[in-house]
Amino acid sequence: MTKKIAKELDRELQARADLVTEAIDSLLPVMHPRPLYEAGRHLVDAGGKRLRPSMLLLAGEAAGGDAAALASAAVSIELIHNFTLIHDDIMDNADVRRGRAAVHKLWGLSGAILAGDTLYSKAFQVLGMTKARPDLILGAMNMLSRTCTAICEGQWLDMEFESKERVSEAEYMEMIEKKTGVLYGAAAGMGGLLAGAAPQEVAALDEFGRLTGMGFQLQDDVIDLITPEKVSGKRQGGDLIEAKKTLIIIHALANNVSVPVFGKKDASAEEILDGIAVLEKSGSIEYARSRAEDMVSRGKKALQVLPESKAKEMLLELADYMVKRHY
Amino acid sequence: MTKKIAKELDRELQARADLVTEAIDSLLPVMHPRPLYEAGRHLVDAGGKRLRPSMLLLAGEAAGGDAAALASAAVSIELIHNFTLIHDDIMDNADVRRGRAAVHKLWGLSGAILAGDTLYSKAFQVLGMTKARPDLILGAMNMLSRTCTAICEGQWLDMEFESKERVSEAEYMEMIEKKTGVLYGAAAGMGGLLAGAAPQEVAALDEFGRLTGMGFQLQDDVIDLITPEKVSGKRQGGDLIEAKKTLIIIHALANNVSVPVFGKKDASAEEILDGIAVLEKSGSIEYARSRAEDMVSRGKKALQVLPESKAKEMLLELADYMVKRHY
Repeated sequence: MTKKIAKELDRELQARADLVTEAIDSLLPVMHPRPLYEAGRHLVDAGGKRLRPSMLLLAGEAAGGDAAALASAAVSIELIHNFTLIHDDIMDNADVRRGRAAVHKLWGLSGAILAGDTLYSKAFQVLGMTKARPDLILGAMNMLSRTCTAICEGQWLDMEFESKERVSEAEYMEMIEKKTGVLYGAAAGMGGLLAGAAPQEVAALDEFGRLTGMGFQLQDDVIDLITPEKVSGKRQGGDLIEAKKTLIIIHALANNVSVPVFGKKDASAEEILDGIAVLEKSGSIEYARSRAEDMVSRGKKALQVLPESKAKEMLLELADYMVKRHY
Repeated sequence: MTKKIAKELDRELQARADLVTEAIDSLLPVMHPRPLYEAGRHLVDAGGKRLRPSMLLLAGEAAGGDAAALASAAVSIELIHNFTLIHDDIMDNADVRRGRAAVHKLWGLSGAILAGDTLYSKAFQVLGMTKARPDLILGAMNMLSRTCTAICEGQWLDMEFESKERVSEAEYMEMIEKKTGVLYGAAAGMGGLLAGAAPQEVAALDEFGRLTGMGFQLQDDVIDLITPEKVSGKRQGGDLIEAKKTLIIIHALANNVSVPVFGKKDASAEEILDGIAVLEKSGSIEYARSRAEDMVSRGKKALQVLPESKAKEMLLELADYMVKRHY
């Protein structure tokens, strides 16, 4: 990606992120009982890149739709994403998210469960406010509810991996498809559907989102290993010492590569760097990176059914960005 | 209610509960990952009276609809109810529900959060399968999402009451309206809406459900005090020693009635019975009972806009049952 294209993508994504942030303010006001809505807004207001709702808007535009009309649908995707973050942080007992204290750290377990549940129903409420034909909105709701079920399944599988001796590549791929891929798929698919795209275009956008979302997750695993804490804000190799069974580790184990630091929570910085070097040498990091690129190239291919447009071009750039980013 | 009418109501409710139970089996199969779905089915399969989905079916029938066509919508209401039970039991740290171990006791905190989340999205999925016009299904989804948000608000208010010195009657009524009333309202309203009822009939059914649901909750508070454990399966006066701020207690405190056993978790059976006698003498129990009857009679009045039918008759009987039951 040239610097010029990167800058343009950045500008286009920022414009859509701003649209989403503005819509959140009017669609999720802090109202009675205020602390419940403050807890619900806590992570939403911390920002993040808003990649999922931006993908929904770009997909809708690529299908001939208007971003402003799709803003509430984009917000619904962002609210579902934030609901999963709040509940996941409880399950993972995570302290920090997006540079802020996790919701359960500030509002307690019950407050965080309820804040997540509230975002869940608000997502369906605001999706219902989209300016589109009722049958299209209903179709989008059906996509979103199916997606949420799949996300729960994905999170369940991820937790199950912790107590599993061995996880296969196929099992890992199923997990990230459900935990991460399907929400990107729903974002792109819903954007197209609500903009009135033909069924095969909706299916193509769904596949594009799902595959690039999986690529995004695989790259996330890579970033954990290759990016220093001062760049990522997260401890380098954190997944490694936490014994997370990423594709990188699955590849290493399948090739009988010994990684002594795996699951060693009190490992020194030097031990961690040694472990990363081992995974670099064994080709395990490169393997995950190549699988990520493979996903993204398949995703981009799916978009061939769509007519050329500026929005489609941005979707293709976004796909590249999702696996080329280093933090 | 004569014995004959009670028997007929019982038979009619049972027929609808059976329809719902059968539909659950096909709409919520235990599939991969199995333990997630087993956790989700745990309380659903323990039964309960299925009053909410039965109210949806009766409301639909009273509006000229067909119960079989509305079965999946009825299931969606039952799934939402069960999702709230699972998450509430975590928040209340409850051990037992419907005679079974609470979901979080068997599948852990994370399992219970996810099982609840799964029922939440499954509810919207199965509602989307209702045999009705798309615009009506969309209207029902909008009712359901608004309702779920209100339920979260109601649960939040209920938790807030624990740390509040004084709770007013108005605050209490708002809490039970949101925590219990609105789901009965949505059940009746959605049944009417999906059966094609006119807007004022849908509004009347919604009001009927909401008010009788509130009466149901008020009667629940009364039952806690007047029904012995061997009949109810719950410790008599449990709310009292747990310091739950029910309307009965609010009335007593407002009238400067002293109830020493209030909040005394280690109270003896004799102390509890003494406390109940005090609340009987002060008219506090009778006050809650009369408010419950008032709610139900207002709810029944709302149904006057509907034409006479067997289903409407059953709705009126159900309303009476909801405040006349003693367990």
